[in-house]
Amino acid sequence: MVEDMTTPLLSDSEAPADALPVCLTSPTVAILGSGDFSRSLALRLVASGVRVVVGSRCVNRIPSGLFPDAVELRNQEGAVSQAVCLVFMAVFPEHYCSLLGLQSALAGKVLVDVSNGAEMNIHGPSNAERLAELFPDSLVVKGFNTVSTWELQTGAHDGSRQVMICSNSTEGKKKVVQLARQMGFHPVDMGGLSAAREIEVAPLRLFPSWSGPVVVTFLLFLFFYGYGFLRGILLPFLAQGGHNAFYRLALDLVNESLPAVALVTLALVYFPGLFAAWLQLWRGTKYQRFPSWLDNWLQRRKQLGLLSFLCAALHGVYSLCLPLRRITLHRLVNTAYRQVKAGTEEPWDELGVWRSDLYLSCGVLGLGVLSLLAITSLPTVGNTLNWREFTFVQSGLGYIALTLSIMHTLFFGWDFAFHIEAYPFYMPPSYLLAVVVPCIVLVCRCFL
Amino acid sequence: MVEDMTTPLLSDSEAPADALPVCLTSPTVAILGSGDFSRSLALRLVASGVRVVVGSRCVNRIPSGLFPDAVELRNQEGAVSQAVCLVFMAVFPEHYCSLLGLQSALAGKVLVDVSNGAEMNIHGPSNAERLAELFPDSLVVKGFNTVSTWELQTGAHDGSRQVMICSNSTEGKKKVVQLARQMGFHPVDMGGLSAAREIEVAPLRLFPSWSGPVVVTFLLFLFFYGYGFLRGILLPFLAQGGHNAFYRLALDLVNESLPAVALVTLALVYFPGLFAAWLQLWRGTKYQRFPSWLDNWLQRRKQLGLLSFLCAALHGVYSLCLPLRRITLHRLVNTAYRQVKAGTEEPWDELGVWRSDLYLSCGVLGLGVLSLLAITSLPTVGNTLNWREFTFVQSGLGYIALTLSIMHTLFFGWDFAFHIEAYPFYMPPSYLLAVVVPCIVLVCRCFL
Amino acid sequence: MVEDMTTPLLSDSEAPADALPVCLTSPTVAILGSGDFSRSLALRLVASGVRVVVGSRCVNRIPSGLFPDAVELRNQEGAVSQAVCLVFMAVFPEHYCSLLGLQSALAGKVLVDVSNGAEMNIHGPSNAERLAELFPDSLVVKGFNTVSTWELQTGAHDGSRQVMICSNSTEGKKKVVQLARQMGFHPVDMGGLSAAREIEVAPLRLFPSWSGPVVVTFLLFLFFYGYGFLRGILLPFLAQGGHNAFYRLALDLVNESLPAVALVTLALVYFPGLFAAWLQLWRGTKYQRFPSWLDNWLQRRKQLGLLSFLCAALHGVYSLCLPLRRITLHRLVNTAYRQVKAGTEEPWDELGVWRSDLYLSCGVLGLGVLSLLAITSLPTVGNTLNWREFTFVQSGLGYIALTLSIMHTLFFGWDFAFHIEAYPFYMPPSYLLAVVVPCIVLVCRCFL
Repeated sequence: MVEDMTTPLLSDSEAPADALPVCLTSPTVAILGSGDFSRSLALRLVASGVRVVVGSRCVNRIPSGLFPDAVELRNQEGAVSQAVCLVFMAVFPEHYCSLLGLQSALAGKVLVDVSNGAEMNIHGPSNAERLAELFPDSLVVKGFNTVSTWELQTGAHDGSRQVMICSNSTEGKKKVVQLARQMGFHPVDMGGLSAAREIEVAPLRLFPSWSGPVVVTFLLFLFFYGYGFLRGILLPFLAQGGHNAFYRLALDLVNESLPAVALVTLALVYFPGLFAAWLQLWRGTKYQRFPSWLDNWLQRRKQLGLLSFLCAALHGVYSLCLPLRRITLHRLVNTAYRQVKAGTEEPWDELGVWRSDLYLSCGVLGLGVLSLLAITSLPTVGNTLNWREFTFVQSGLGYIALTLSIMHTLFFGWDFAFHIEAYPFYMPPSYLLAVVVPCIVLVCRCFL
Repeated sequence: MVEDMTTPLLSDSEAPADALPVCLTSPTVAILGSGDFSRSLALRLVASGVRVVVGSRCVNRIPSGLFPDAVELRNQEGAVSQAVCLVFMAVFPEHYCSLLGLQSALAGKVLVDVSNGAEMNIHGPSNAERLAELFPDSLVVKGFNTVSTWELQTGAHDGSRQVMICSNSTEGKKKVVQLARQMGFHPVDMGGLSAAREIEVAPLRLFPSWSGPVVVTFLLFLFFYGYGFLRGILLPFLAQGGHNAFYRLALDLVNESLPAVALVTLALVYFPGLFAAWLQLWRGTKYQRFPSWLDNWLQRRKQLGLLSFLCAALHGVYSLCLPLRRITLHRLVNTAYRQVKAGTEEPWDELGVWRSDLYLSCGVLGLGVLSLLAITSLPTVGNTLNWREFTFVQSGLGYIALTLSIMHTLFFGWDFAFHIEAYPFYMPPSYLLAVVVPCIVLVCRCFL
Repeated sequence: MVEDMTTPLLSDSEAPADALPVCLTSPTVAILGSGDFSRSLALRLVASGVRVVVGSRCVNRIPSGLFPDAVELRNQEGAVSQAVCLVFMAVFPEHYCSLLGLQSALAGKVLVDVSNGAEMNIHGPSNAERLAELFPDSLVVKGFNTVSTWELQTGAHDGSRQVMICSNSTEGKKKVVQLARQMGFHPVDMGGLSAAREIEVAPLRLFPSWSGPVVVTFLLFLFFYGYGFLRGILLPFLAQGGHNAFYRLALDLVNESLPAVALVTLALVYFPGLFAAWLQLWRGTKYQRFPSWLDNWLQRRKQLGLLSFLCAALHGVYSLCLPLRRITLHRLVNTAYRQVKAGTEEPWDELGVWRSDLYLSCGVLGLGVLSLLAITSLPTVGNTLNWREFTFVQSGLGYIALTLSIMHTLFFGWDFAFHIEAYPFYMPPSYLLAVVVPCIVLVCRCFL
């Protein structure tokens, strides 16, 4: 979107006279360290009209052209002495101790800790807290570690990129917040320095809120796929000695498992809400905390819903692909061939026509309603809704989607579940297993 | 998005005196009332680093653990006396009178009215205005009622949740705006206290801008569905005594009505713009107000367009489902059977092949262009476009989509409309009815 | 989204007392000129609680009712003298000279240049710079030209509409930024006045970052379409004298070209990254600038990826349409007819069944992964990702999508490419051409 950062970058070097008045407004900022992050940070600061001095232990080893011309390169003491108030610590946290000699020079100044956490370990103090211990007379602020060097270089003109900031010093936090805004970022105050650990591990996280729901969905898929394999392919193969239906593995079985997964996952979205409501009724109060597993579950409903939508959409596309399969052509031609051999037209099957039309209709509409739910879960769309609208969409439309999906399954199943042939090896068809939890949820909902 | 208002307001250089109270940091805030909203508000304030005192008439009846430990519980007088400047009124508006005894204690303080409107009635003063009458010496600010208790409890770290605020007191508004930002919300200044009524009913609204377009689309669907039922099912059934085509109700007829609705709705998106242009030409000025019905219509174009896209997309999915139907298999097999009986291959129908390919192509491309339009109507995507790009997409691509949809219909209709068999009971096919308005719009557009 | 600007507009006339305190806070602002932009700007300022005076050379010729009642109309001198600090220049930049008489009256005041650039010419000073030359004693600020009159009138309550601002005067910029926020816009500081040219041409741009990728994609489509036309239609027609396959132009050939385009475009997304990595390895440093063509290419990867997704999605929908074609029915019926004539059922083709299921599966999954990529490229979704998540999605999922697409193509191709019949006129099938670059990219990736 916004990659037009080049102009200010260039205009600075092209027309230094231009930049002057801007520089007068922002007091010089120092950056200790000359690595990648330091370089990108310097670029961004210069582009935002800030005078920057970079302090390094070995200034002479920095290749020329690495930093923009407007940046002054000094040794560490020189850089710190030039900084009016803000000093970025762009060195590895392991090397904080080596800066102890600057303690007095840094006293009273704002030190910005931009380091990431080393591992996901929860124990031990955060880098920023250790820095604050080492430099008790400085105002330590945690921030900018969640921003990548790429974002620093390209800029974020739309100001939507968040920069999480925390500090025990209100004064220091205010200065950094102001600078972050000048750089085009969206500073978010996370509170005191004790929040630093959370900020430090934030860049290491990989979709933390998705891991649980993805695992659940994947296990459900494995279960239904394995069950279908046993019931429809392996056991018949062993029993009938060689009747080979393994060709169903690639598409048929996947398309049989996906709707079951989608249905159960959608039910899992609404189950914890019902359980919570029942718990409140049973306890007689709504002010007691829920057990933490229920709390977690409640907070993952959005992810479960989106995964359910993903499975349902894949099932839809797979089903639409069915007429394109080689086997469909094969069956059609042979059906026609047998009809001709039998010497009669295929009789009109009114019930069969209604059944297929009804389950297709319910499926299409259910998927349509799920799409609306998925769209409103986009941040900007959801933010424009008031509470009543949000409830209408997520609860009202959600239950409509669930009902349509159940009807889709029941019309698909028709009365076949009442015939003994549906239970080879005493195993019910998988859509019958899948429809149990959703039906329970729907019945409970009607009673509550 | 935009919460950097603090800087100019506080900016060190301008008004150092201003910055002081914020640094202290936040003076104690009082909340009167101990209900759900009070509890959630207290949680959020504490989490944002604000000292909170809750005032209740019966402090002893509050269960321990209901409020976080950091919150002080007092009687109402005690709470108000501790509040430095801000007092939240988290009591039912009916009970405002019962607080009249606090009038002098509340004088000069900022009272934040967080109540919702009781009903959708437009008459009578708003709660906030009544509060201002009762406490003439206080600075009444309306706000926070649009935020749900859930959002208060979970926070809104991304600062995108809006809080609408209005007041006759600039001073009071400024304080509340500042607090809202500290809490992570996005305050929006709605002007004087007369805007309070609108703010109070905002949480009661249910998609106000959608009701009109949804009703129009639904009525169009009813019309086309009913028309198709009469023409294709009921009248033939009555005339031929028992020729049963009722199986077409579930899918066929829906899939026949949806494209007609989509086409007419899409034309309705572009009709008011043409009418407005014609009106301006006729009046000879563009500075006269449009009649309000036209104004409303113009403001609903986006919703109409999205509903048209929804119908078109459903039509697309339904059409792709056709080969999956039981009846399709039935027809295919019997066609082959009859071909065999006749003893000849089916002859090559070049025109028929071109016709089907052309109407499928136009349909797919039209839906594709409509999808692009729908995507750019997402807030964040649309906000990145400049006016010229917006016009190019909405008007340029929009008319391309309309043209492709009309071509889709015309290729589908081919020359069948010129044959008498297309008019059973003197009723033209519904696609012929649907294509009239879009054609008029397209022709007018070419002339204007 | 936000079209409820009416209330503040009305509240002015309803409750004049109401408006007073708000007005006291914002010093009077003057607008020179009485055109469309001036009118809309005045509306917006009044709605935001700012006192406005409009200065025009011929006040008497302004029709009554054109400006809201709260706006005062004066001659130019009168308007400027009332302005406390801010004067908007809503006149054509060609007429700036005619205002030279106001030079002393405007001295020390902030002049906001709202003009657009006349053409896309890069040479010559920007309007704002010319204004600054003409009025050296005023503080010239560029801004608001990127906002349309429509947005001014309807307002932007969600504060997401950007207003780009630049100036050499920090003081002036600060005042304008503050006003922009009061008006509900999102001011973005673009630096010194030398950035004015860029801001002035911004509204004239039409998707600048899309033109390159769109042209590339279109040329690729032309190539594959033309190649397919030659190989499959024209040359066979000429060679066999009259074997007419021109019916394939409308759908078949498009659906054959689209996947080839999608595949090559997707490879082009990942090619520059690999080349850049190789360049860094070869140069032995990552701090040397890339050649500008590579830089441009790297910056267009997102657009290329979205166009690849568009082509892939269209290919998907076209393919699903295949069973709906007239020719499909024709072929099916005649296949069955021939089978009957031959007197045998069609034999079971296990390999053919596997092949069709596998290429359909890979295609569906590849498109699904591409959809996830497209969704995360939406600004709000992408902004919530940290760097690690972004890399996982864009690089990890991206290569999975590429691999699945290649497998889709290879399964589709099967072993046909090893038969001589696949090379009529010595021309290989187009999917074979399309799969070359992606395979190279995939192999290079494994090595790097």
